[in-house]
Amino acid sequence: MAAQGFWSLGAENAGDNSTQSPSTPRAWCQAAAQKFTGGIGSKICALLNVGEAEKPADPVAKKPEAEAGTCSCSKPCNCSKTNIGFSELYSTDLLPATNGDLKTMTFLQEVVDILLAYIVESFDRSTKVIDFHYPNELLQSNNWELSDEPETLDDILISCRATLKYAIKTAHPRYFNQLSTGLDMVGLAADWLTSTANTNMFTYEVAPVFVLLEYVTLKKMREIIGWQEGRGDGIFSPGGAISNMYAMLLARFKMFPEVKEKGMSSVPRLAAFTSEHSHFSIKKGAAALGIGTDSVICIKVDERGKMIPSDLERRIVEAKQKGLVPFFVSATAGTTVYGAFDPLIAIADICKKYEIWMHVDGAWGGSLLMSRKHRWKLNGVERANSVTWNPHKMMSVPLQCSALLVREEGLMQSCNQMHACYLFQQDKHYDLSYDTGDKALQCGRHVDIFKLWLMWKAKGTIGFEAQIDKCLELSEYLYNKIKDREGYEMVFNGKPQHTNVCFWYLPPGVRYLEDKEEKQKRLHKVAPVIKARMMEYGTTMVSYQPQGDKVNFFRMVISNPAATFEDIDFLIEEIERLSQDL
Amino acid sequence: MAAQGFWSLGAENAGDNSTQSPSTPRAWCQAAAQKFTGGIGSKICALLNVGEAEKPADPVAKKPEAEAGTCSCSKPCNCSKTNIGFSELYSTDLLPATNGDLKTMTFLQEVVDILLAYIVESFDRSTKVIDFHYPNELLQSNNWELSDEPETLDDILISCRATLKYAIKTAHPRYFNQLSTGLDMVGLAADWLTSTANTNMFTYEVAPVFVLLEYVTLKKMREIIGWQEGRGDGIFSPGGAISNMYAMLLARFKMFPEVKEKGMSSVPRLAAFTSEHSHFSIKKGAAALGIGTDSVICIKVDERGKMIPSDLERRIVEAKQKGLVPFFVSATAGTTVYGAFDPLIAIADICKKYEIWMHVDGAWGGSLLMSRKHRWKLNGVERANSVTWNPHKMMSVPLQCSALLVREEGLMQSCNQMHACYLFQQDKHYDLSYDTGDKALQCGRHVDIFKLWLMWKAKGTIGFEAQIDKCLELSEYLYNKIKDREGYEMVFNGKPQHTNVCFWYLPPGVRYLEDKEEKQKRLHKVAPVIKARMMEYGTTMVSYQPQGDKVNFFRMVISNPAATFEDIDFLIEEIERLSQDL
Repeated sequence: MAAQGFWSLGAENAGDNSTQSPSTPRAWCQAAAQKFTGGIGSKICALLNVGEAEKPADPVAKKPEAEAGTCSCSKPCNCSKTNIGFSELYSTDLLPATNGDLKTMTFLQEVVDILLAYIVESFDRSTKVIDFHYPNELLQSNNWELSDEPETLDDILISCRATLKYAIKTAHPRYFNQLSTGLDMVGLAADWLTSTANTNMFTYEVAPVFVLLEYVTLKKMREIIGWQEGRGDGIFSPGGAISNMYAMLLARFKMFPEVKEKGMSSVPRLAAFTSEHSHFSIKKGAAALGIGTDSVICIKVDERGKMIPSDLERRIVEAKQKGLVPFFVSATAGTTVYGAFDPLIAIADICKKYEIWMHVDGAWGGSLLMSRKHRWKLNGVERANSVTWNPHKMMSVPLQCSALLVREEGLMQSCNQMHACYLFQQDKHYDLSYDTGDKALQCGRHVDIFKLWLMWKAKGTIGFEAQIDKCLELSEYLYNKIKDREGYEMVFNGKPQHTNVCFWYLPPGVRYLEDKEEKQKRLHKVAPVIKARMMEYGTTMVSYQPQGDKVNFFRMVISNPAATFEDIDFLIEEIERLSQDL
Repeated sequence: MAAQGFWSLGAENAGDNSTQSPSTPRAWCQAAAQKFTGGIGSKICALLNVGEAEKPADPVAKKPEAEAGTCSCSKPCNCSKTNIGFSELYSTDLLPATNGDLKTMTFLQEVVDILLAYIVESFDRSTKVIDFHYPNELLQSNNWELSDEPETLDDILISCRATLKYAIKTAHPRYFNQLSTGLDMVGLAADWLTSTANTNMFTYEVAPVFVLLEYVTLKKMREIIGWQEGRGDGIFSPGGAISNMYAMLLARFKMFPEVKEKGMSSVPRLAAFTSEHSHFSIKKGAAALGIGTDSVICIKVDERGKMIPSDLERRIVEAKQKGLVPFFVSATAGTTVYGAFDPLIAIADICKKYEIWMHVDGAWGGSLLMSRKHRWKLNGVERANSVTWNPHKMMSVPLQCSALLVREEGLMQSCNQMHACYLFQQDKHYDLSYDTGDKALQCGRHVDIFKLWLMWKAKGTIGFEAQIDKCLELSEYLYNKIKDREGYEMVFNGKPQHTNVCFWYLPPGVRYLEDKEEKQKRLHKVAPVIKARMMEYGTTMVSYQPQGDKVNFFRMVISNPAATFEDIDFLIEEIERLSQDL
């Protein structure tokens, strides 16, 4: 049998939607079915019944099997469900098995139908962001152990449904928990294609198109940074932390090329500089590269979280006096918590004066370069030696997509190459400059480029700009809404520079406490409780943390193109609703 | 209009397949259409006509548009192509756009149809492995530049088709070029689901299911290695090179925990040991970690490419005499070129004697642990401190999927953690031991677990075993076929231990040369020419390289579950056919 669980409910009730609002899947389904006469009408109906099917006690469980040879739709239909019985099939029946074509296509189509239903559901505000369960609950209620024996394709489909049932809906318009939110449909299509192409970025030989698209895209990104004619180098790496680590590695190699062979024992004691609000990956990188976290000197920030250039200069001079060699300054364009942009021009001047590699960690804020309205916040970025820029954050490219852009051409290659002759043969018949694998730390490298490139094609630069501008507009709306609202206190004053809005909410029971210490103590516990309740209700998700001597506060960020003003209103109402008793 | 390019040919000829062999898509299509009365019959027909459509001059170009409101099938049909006109739609019409549901589903379905067609084609031996073009040709004949303005969804679909047209078919039964080949259908489905779930591995909060599945799977892998009750630690990392780098990082931290804060200046000069045939990532890791490539001491191998334990011991003693501190031995289980397994028991004895961290780089050979017949080749692996094992190689999990397994629990966490309080809040409402992100070098981490876990469910351990055993059987078949065949010389003697079969083919013009030096010089050029011709004909792909003083030879490897004895025969015939004139 082909259709189960998610599929089997609702078809008979499809007409009975009088009590539902027009925005429910069922009402929508009826409208669609009327509008479209082809097979897609009924197919979409079936798809949308998924939302309805979610309510039974165990929505992912196996249903009694329909008669072999029929689909389980309750009425005559021309949906794509055929008479293939997955309960009798195993993965060995799929391609490359002889005559596996049809079974394969039907199986993959079944999976796609599950995914399409999940996607539609994810954007529906009436569904939960998360159906939260504690780790032990999930482990106990699901048979996730691996065994010697195979399971049927039916069981595999059940596992797919269960996985999505308990997944977090990162596309949901009210999911604000991370810097990477939302789900772009073209990006998703591109990622499906990438999986299907299933290849590796190390050589042109095995990834001709993807290697060229990476070349084209990196050049475009360098142009946007402002490097002449887009010259320079770069790579897509598995995340901003690794991109930042690459930058530190390059800076060290540029100053002391002998470090590659001789190691740190050939090098004087180094010093790296970054703000106290910078991302933890700078220290992580220093630990890994054998520089040590003690050699990462944290520069003071102002009230808004921006690095103070005079403190940077002071600490550089101090380090030199101690005999350390300053080699690396990482300025942050869009800090993780405050969304602050370090003053890049002043920092560039200092780096020039002391001949230090200037890196800009724009993992979060780099995307503002795409916006004519907001790119001034990164003025000076063109003077950097390297820039981290994660399109998987503010540009909503599916995870992962992080670029490191480097101003000097050829440096990555000399820093990292090992000339593996089984991979980078020098007597190949094509232009070897496209075999870029030897400049990477990785050997095999996942294809992260296609989703960004295809989205860029689909949106154009102006499309990304519009998307980014809208998120910033929403955050300004939130800021204006709460800055003078009763019970709210801003963590820092002034309009946010990025989409980060940091605030405390003081529920009635905390708001009027007179004992300052007691008030802070109680306030510290508010955000975790509200967050836990958000997750248990599944209505929304937003992050919180302490910072320095500041007790737990909410860090709202908006990178989800699905979010609207109404969702911001909802968040505020929800925070207040969930903390009435606190 | 919905259907173009790939789609628009063939429908009117679907009945006219008398001249085709039954294995062609067209004949298959007819059979399928007769067998299945539902919508899937015509749908599959349309899908399979893709193969037919590949031959026109420009198969990815835009076709004249069909009338708006009709699908472009030439006969009445009930395929899922609706009257949505992609040439008038943009990505902004898709979700989260109001009423974007139907357009989104139709668009994604169109992409899936392109992918399904590509998949079926990839397994068809009558299609090319690659439609090779030189980089400049591709750049000139395609408009891949990025611009300010958006393109229509129609253009996006055309780009998808073009990308696949020039992609390498890594699933093709005659693609032998890399250690990672083949395309597993359940793995692919899982990767599509992963993209759709679009989340991050750092916390339980945002990836509850995936975090638990990683936990379950790592434990299972440690059990298979032989660690008691599967105890220990581990992580899925972006590839074997990074897994190996993690191991080196852990070994250094274990011996000198102060290195995290103080860097390499607090540590004596270190020495790492690995065989001269080991993977280049060991040196790459040493360069990055500030240890330096000169501190990686290459141990001699025997004629079969296995590390010689007595040489290891000699070099350890020598290093100590020079004042170096030996801290890391990386034994290789399945070398990249020869497929050799270093003698792990002897190496474990030496590591124990000198108290050195023993790492096993089983990126390629680790999967043999799944085979009762072949796992003896890794005897002693249970004595390692860490093991790299890439299921994306011999187990055909889609790229990337690489695990580092570590015997000591908690070490990764203490080595790498930075306590970022915006991510790893200590006052969350669930068991924080599942927030595993702080043990990683990465911050955001791609979900690589689901494809492996779902494949394991679908195959069972015995399914992986069967798949691996079959690949080894095929390589033995190849070895037996060529070892005494005229014109072939084996690079090393004896039955291969892994699926690597390394050989020279001496074409008639080289075979009888008397001048030894001239013969070697000519032979060195043979493999590159044959390889270039393979790619230009697109019939098959296999790797070649020199090694040490050995001139270019072919390194045949088999990891593709689609390969058969017939494909091995084909490879040999093709090598001989393509070099008749050499």
